[in-house]
Amino acid sequence: MEDNPIETYREFIIEVFNRYSPISEASISLLISMGKIQHLDKGSILLSIGETSRHIHILYQGAIVSYYLNKEGDMYHKNIFLEGNIVGSMVSALKNKPSHFALEVVEKSTLISFDYRKYRELIDSQSDLKNFYISYLEKNWVIDKEKREVEIVLKEAKERYLDFITLHPNIEARIPLQFIASHLGITPTQLSRIRKKIKEKSSNQHM
Amino acid sequence: MEDNPIETYREFIIEVFNRYSPISEASISLLISMGKIQHLDKGSILLSIGETSRHIHILYQGAIVSYYLNKEGDMYHKNIFLEGNIVGSMVSALKNKPSHFALEVVEKSTLISFDYRKYRELIDSQSDLKNFYISYLEKNWVIDKEKREVEIVLKEAKERYLDFITLHPNIEARIPLQFIASHLGITPTQLSRIRKKIKEKSSNQHM
Repeated sequence: MEDNPIETYREFIIEVFNRYSPISEASISLLISMGKIQHLDKGSILLSIGETSRHIHILYQGAIVSYYLNKEGDMYHKNIFLEGNIVGSMVSALKNKPSHFALEVVEKSTLISFDYRKYRELIDSQSDLKNFYISYLEKNWVIDKEKREVEIVLKEAKERYLDFITLHPNIEARIPLQFIASHLGITPTQLSRIRKKIKEKSSNQHM
Repeated sequence: MEDNPIETYREFIIEVFNRYSPISEASISLLISMGKIQHLDKGSILLSIGETSRHIHILYQGAIVSYYLNKEGDMYHKNIFLEGNIVGSMVSALKNKPSHFALEVVEKSTLISFDYRKYRELIDSQSDLKNFYISYLEKNWVIDKEKREVEIVLKEAKERYLDFITLHPNIEARIPLQFIASHLGITPTQLSRIRKKIKEKSSNQHM
């Protein structure tokens, strides 16, 4: 891990934490004192399957995906992480056990990385960070997970795809389509068909 | 909601909360002072789709399932709740918005019910309950959810079924098979085939 002047990222770190709950300047300084900056190239593996996670990261720039592999080596996608997202294998870090999934850099990334144990101890010791952590768990692990479940049940695949590319313009240039497909709960073939139909429709409209 | 002597359930409530994190007698007494006992018959709807949830419950006895309905009215199963589980539509209660899923009693149940707003205020005001809540979110919403994701990717449906009935003996007499199937991430037809094969195998072995 490279030692970079993390102070440059202070405003960004404040913004990420304050999205969840108000954080004191003192807590931000404590976080900054234990953070490190990492620059990772496209194709880098931030965490391998079977490796025990010792860190948690904030993605400053770039894109990272997580995926499982089944016994046959088929890839099952889990998540897409973009700027401002908190990235890690939380279960592995929490339980100090090998991660079930990998984290792969799919676009050159800059990360602010924290030692997980120290980060968790800091949360336990600072009441504002404890409130941030509760809000983070509720938002990212309860509310957002249900939103995704509901969308898979209630929306057609095409609608989910259109919502996704509207929310994240230019995403198709950044994330390989196989990850976008499984993020939407469909196969890459289904995604190709949806994209083709939309293209045909839009070129007909422009004739 | 019926007013029953909730003190009878004190030991059970202590046990449920202490599974996550140590709770003081004072906090247990505060919880008990705001709890109500409900007895619900099989077939009762604890929460309808579209209804805003105002309560959170601990299931003392019985079984409850949660499910979504898609536009065509097909049922998508979410969870099975058994004794000792915390039951509710947390997203609806947290956001004060209509629930996306229903909660249905599939076996006569006794619940300890709390007003959600008061429960959440109590958590915010008591540090031991705050630690319980963090531990509950980490265990039920982060660790257990990943465990289920991993099992769906790495284990055959038959293996998942056998694990499930080993962990919950007699469950098939309590929960309709359609809910067990979707809990395992398979269709009711796939579940019937698996059960038939296992039965055939076991009757061959006993010949």
